[in-house]
Amino acid sequence: MTTDIERLNEVDLEAVGGLVQAIRQEPHRAHTTWGATVTWDGGFRSTAKIRDFDPIPSDEPEALGGTDTAPNPVEQLLGALGNCLAVGYAAGASAQGITLQDLRIELEGDLDLRSFLGIQDGHAGYGDVRVKVHLETDADEDELRKLHERVVGTSPVGHSVNAAIPLSIELA
Amino acid sequence: MTTDIERLNEVDLEAVGGLVQAIRQEPHRAHTTWGATVTWDGGFRSTAKIRDFDPIPSDEPEALGGTDTAPNPVEQLLGALGNCLAVGYAAGASAQGITLQDLRIELEGDLDLRSFLGIQDGHAGYGDVRVKVHLETDADEDELRKLHERVVGTSPVGHSVNAAIPLSIELA
Repeated sequence: MTTDIERLNEVDLEAVGGLVQAIRQEPHRAHTTWGATVTWDGGFRSTAKIRDFDPIPSDEPEALGGTDTAPNPVEQLLGALGNCLAVGYAAGASAQGITLQDLRIELEGDLDLRSFLGIQDGHAGYGDVRVKVHLETDADEDELRKLHERVVGTSPVGHSVNAAIPLSIELA
Repeated sequence: MTTDIERLNEVDLEAVGGLVQAIRQEPHRAHTTWGATVTWDGGFRSTAKIRDFDPIPSDEPEALGGTDTAPNPVEQLLGALGNCLAVGYAAGASAQGITLQDLRIELEGDLDLRSFLGIQDGHAGYGDVRVKVHLETDADEDELRKLHERVVGTSPVGHSVNAAIPLSIELA
């Protein structure tokens, strides 16, 4: 027999709380490793395989030499960031007792193609990334500000973008 | 009537070369803006919409309070990085006249969950990211080393991860 529990924003706070408790007791459980395997499919097409999920396809627009069959990697990065922030708002709102009616996140990033194309040396990544968050909730402005600060301060993908992450890339 | 041109690694070097020429003549064309829109779907589920492509679904594992229907955002970030590196190797190999027989990229990242979960303040992103690149080509070791350095030095997602990108997140 299962019991249906009405959950705020459909978030399983009990599972999150249980994990927090487990990590407080055994801190090593906080250390997680995540992975992906990417396979090249010809041209600028490739797919990222993550666990048993459908592969995430990737391509480049024709102007960049691709066949434009899928979002390109810099777009996927923005998608990952937005998806991460959505988890943050859903988790934080539920913890604060805020009901989310709607949440939509618009992301934009500027990129100078010259480094990628080898026209100049230097930074090939985003120059900056801008995010606008549209929230519909039952919360007042103070609660929303608290929620927002919490999300910005704890976002794994957000911090992976706005901090310099040690990255080693090696030929096997 | 179309003409089929045999392209090395199926890469449209002519398109890439044309873009390089266009940017040399009109540098402002190097400035590109990319976007994504993320919609929350309840719980920790959301989807990232990019241009007219199928939305990229996102969820969290059950241990993290999700319903485990899709890769999570930190996994998507690794996928985006691997897909970006694949474009780099395909483009670079073609420019160097190297035939790619096979390319597979394994990515791993360590993440301490304590900041995300609010157990401690500080960096919530990846502690580090490690990438192993399996290349099968007709190139010698020197050519491969040159290719590898070129890719690592020009990767838009790679540089977005290993440099600190200005990130503004605002409530609309």
